[in-house]
Amino acid sequence: MSGPLVGRLAIIGAGLIGSSVARAAKEKGLAGTVVVSDRDAAVRARVLELGFADEVPETGAQAAEGADIIVVCVPVGASGAVAAEIAPALKPGAIVSDVGSVKGAVVEQMAPHIPAHAHLVPAHPVAGTEFSGPDAGFATLFENRWCIVTPTEGADSEAVAKLEGLWRGMGANVETMSPQHHDLVLAITSHVPHLIAYNIVGTAEHLEHTLTSEVIKFSAGGFRDFTRIAASDPTMWRDVFLYNREAVLEMLGRFTEDLSALQRAIRYGDGDALFEHFTRTRAIRRSIIEQGQETAAPDFGRRVVKDGTAG
Amino acid sequence: MSGPLVGRLAIIGAGLIGSSVARAAKEKGLAGTVVVSDRDAAVRARVLELGFADEVPETGAQAAEGADIIVVCVPVGASGAVAAEIAPALKPGAIVSDVGSVKGAVVEQMAPHIPAHAHLVPAHPVAGTEFSGPDAGFATLFENRWCIVTPTEGADSEAVAKLEGLWRGMGANVETMSPQHHDLVLAITSHVPHLIAYNIVGTAEHLEHTLTSEVIKFSAGGFRDFTRIAASDPTMWRDVFLYNREAVLEMLGRFTEDLSALQRAIRYGDGDALFEHFTRTRAIRRSIIEQGQETAAPDFGRRVVKDGTAG
Ligand SMILES: NC(=O)c1ccc[n+]([C@@H]2O[C@H](COP(=O)([O-])OP(=O)(O)OC[C@H]3O[C@@H](n4cnc5c(N)ncnc54)[C@H](OP(=O)(O)O)[C@@H]3O)[C@@H](O)[C@H]2O)c1
Ligand SMILES: NC(=O)c1ccc[n+]([C@@H]2O[C@H](COP(=O)([O-])OP(=O)(O)OC[C@H]3O[C@@H](n4cnc5c(N)ncnc54)[C@H](OP(=O)(O)O)[C@@H]3O)[C@@H](O)[C@H]2O)c1
Repeated sequence: MSGPLVGRLAIIGAGLIGSSVARAAKEKGLAGTVVVSDRDAAVRARVLELGFADEVPETGAQAAEGADIIVVCVPVGASGAVAAEIAPALKPGAIVSDVGSVKGAVVEQMAPHIPAHAHLVPAHPVAGTEFSGPDAGFATLFENRWCIVTPTEGADSEAVAKLEGLWRGMGANVETMSPQHHDLVLAITSHVPHLIAYNIVGTAEHLEHTLTSEVIKFSAGGFRDFTRIAASDPTMWRDVFLYNREAVLEMLGRFTEDLSALQRAIRYGDGDALFEHFTRTRAIRRSIIEQGQETAAPDFGRRVVKDGTAG
Repeated sequence: MSGPLVGRLAIIGAGLIGSSVARAAKEKGLAGTVVVSDRDAAVRARVLELGFADEVPETGAQAAEGADIIVVCVPVGASGAVAAEIAPALKPGAIVSDVGSVKGAVVEQMAPHIPAHAHLVPAHPVAGTEFSGPDAGFATLFENRWCIVTPTEGADSEAVAKLEGLWRGMGANVETMSPQHHDLVLAITSHVPHLIAYNIVGTAEHLEHTLTSEVIKFSAGGFRDFTRIAASDPTMWRDVFLYNREAVLEMLGRFTEDLSALQRAIRYGDGDALFEHFTRTRAIRRSIIEQGQETAAPDFGRRVVKDGTAG
C-alpha cells in the first residue's frame, strides 16, 4: 500500500492526551514523522527519554513548520495563544486540530488566527484518566472510545476526512456534531459529573477534622468512586468550567432541581417515589455496558487489580 | 487448637451480603455449621446448588434455633420483622447481629424484640458491589475492608468481642462507634454519594430522547462512574434514605451549599476559586489510596478487565 496516513504530525503539549496521540500514531505507523513540542524543557527531555517522538523542538512554531496535521493538546484556555504562535509557520493545506474538552470557546479562540491557506478542524476524544503529564499517556487510550469532531461551517471536507482518518487509525470511533451541541452533551456527560464529584469531596474536606479522617477510612461505601474524577488536573478543569459556562449552568440547574425533588421525597418519607427513581436509573448503565463503553465487572473489576483474583 | 470460632452460625437473607458472609465463614472454617435461610424458595434452592450452606431451612426462626450467632442480612426496613420472627427461637447467650447500612433505626427496630437472655450487637461491613442476590456474593468481599460494630449502651462485652472475632476472621478490620455516629459518617461517605449518583443519572434520563442516547454513547467522559452506584438495589437504598433521614438531610444541606458556591464561581468566572477548590480535593484521594482502600491504577484499572492489558 501507500505510505503512512500523515506525512508530518505535530503535537503541541506532551501531557496525558498529547503523549497518548504521539504513542498511538507511532505504534500504529500513522505518520512518517511524529514531532512533539512542549513549553517545559524538563518535559521535552522526558519525551526524548520515553521515545515516542522523532523530533522534539523547543517551540510550537518549530513543531508546526511543515506539518500536515498539528494537534494542539493544551488546556482550553491556552489554545488561542498556541494558535497565534503557530499560525505564521503553517504550510498551505495544513490541518490544525485540538483535543479540548470544550469546543465552542476553542473555535472562538483559535479560528481568528488560522490563515486562509490552512484548515481548522476541532476535535475531542472522549477518553482520559485522572492522571497528567507525558508518563501518564498510553497508545491504547483511544481504542473503542469516541472522538467527537466538530467542524465549523464551510469546513473543507477533505481536511475533515483526513483528521477523522487519523482518529480512526488510533482506534477511535468518530462522531460529528456542531461545537455547540458538543458542549451541551459534554456538560451532562462529563462537566457536571466532575463538578459534583469535586464538590462532594470538598464537602467532606470541610467537616471537622476527625470526621474527615473517618471519611477517608470508610470511603469504600461509595465516596471513593467520586475521588477518582475529583483528582483530575485542576488547570484543565478550571478552564472547562470557565469556557463552557452556559451549558454547565443549564445542566447544573436541572441537576439541582431534580435533587430537590429527591430531598423532598426523603424529608416526607415518600418511599415509593424513591424506589421508582432508583429503579429507572439502572437501565442507563445496562445500555452503557451493552455499547462497550464500560466494564460489567462488579466494582469496576477493582479486585482484579488489587488481589490478582476475580474475587 | 480448639474448634471453630462459632458453633452454629445462622444467616438470614441470602443476598449479596448474606451469601458473602456464608461463603467467607465456610471457606475460612469459622463455624461448625453454616445455616442460611431466605424467604424465597427459589433462592433457597439456589443456595443449596451453590453449596455454601450446610443447612437451608425454610424460615428464619428455624435457622435461629440453636444458633450461637445470627446475622440478619435483609434491607434495613425489614430488620424489625425478622427480629420479631426469630426472637422466640433464640437460645440463651445467642448473639443477634445484622449488616444494615443504617444503624440507629436498626437498633430501634430490633432491640425491642430481643429477649433478655440474648445479645444484640449490630454491625455494618463497609464493603459491597452494585450486584444483588446469592450469585453476587464472594468469600473475599470483606478482606481489608472495615466492619463497623455499633454496640448499644451496656452491651455484653464478651458478645461484642465474639462478633468482632467473626468479622476479623472474614478478613475485615473492625472499628467500634455509636449507632448515631455511624449514621452521620455513612451519610457523607455512602448515602449522599449514592443519592447524587442516582440523581445525575435521573437528570440525564429526563433529557430529550436523542440527548439521552448521546449521554450513553459519550459516558466515558465521567458519567459512567456514577451509573455504577446508581445501579445498586432500589429496595436497599429506599430503606437507607427512609431510615437515615436526619443525617442524610444534614449532609445533603452542606453539599448543596457548597455546590452553590462553585456554581457562583462559574457564573462570575472566578477561575482562582475553582482552581483552588480542584487542587485541595486531590489530597483526599491520595490518603484513601495510601490506606489501602482504593486502587491507584488509572481509571480504576478498568482496562485490565476489558482488554487483558495494563494499557
Ligand atoms: N485528561 C482528560 O481526561 C482529557 C480527555 C479529553 C480531552 N482532554 C483535553 O486535553 C487537553 C490536554 O489535557 P491533558 O489531560 O493532556 O493535560 P495534561 O496532562 O495536564 O497536559 C497539559 C499540556 O498542556 C501544556 N500547557 C499547559 N498550559 C499551557 C500554556 N498556557 N501554554 C502552552 N502549553 C500549556 C502542558 O505543558 P507543561 O508540560 O508545561 O505542563 C502539557 O503539555 C485539555 O484541553 C483537555 O481539556 C483531556
Ligand atoms: N449491597 C451493599 O453494597 C451493602 C453493603 C453493606 C451493607 N449492606 C446491607 O446489607 C443488607 C442486605 O443487602 P444486600 O446487598 O445483601 O441485598 P440483596 O442482595 O438484595 O439481598 C437482600 C436479602 O434480603 C431479603 N429480603 C428482602 N426483603 C425482605 C423482607 N421484607 N423480609 C425478609 N427478607 C427480605 C432478600 O430476600 P429474597 O431472596 O426474597 O430477595 C435477600 O435475601 C441491607 O441491609 C444493606 O443495607 C449492603
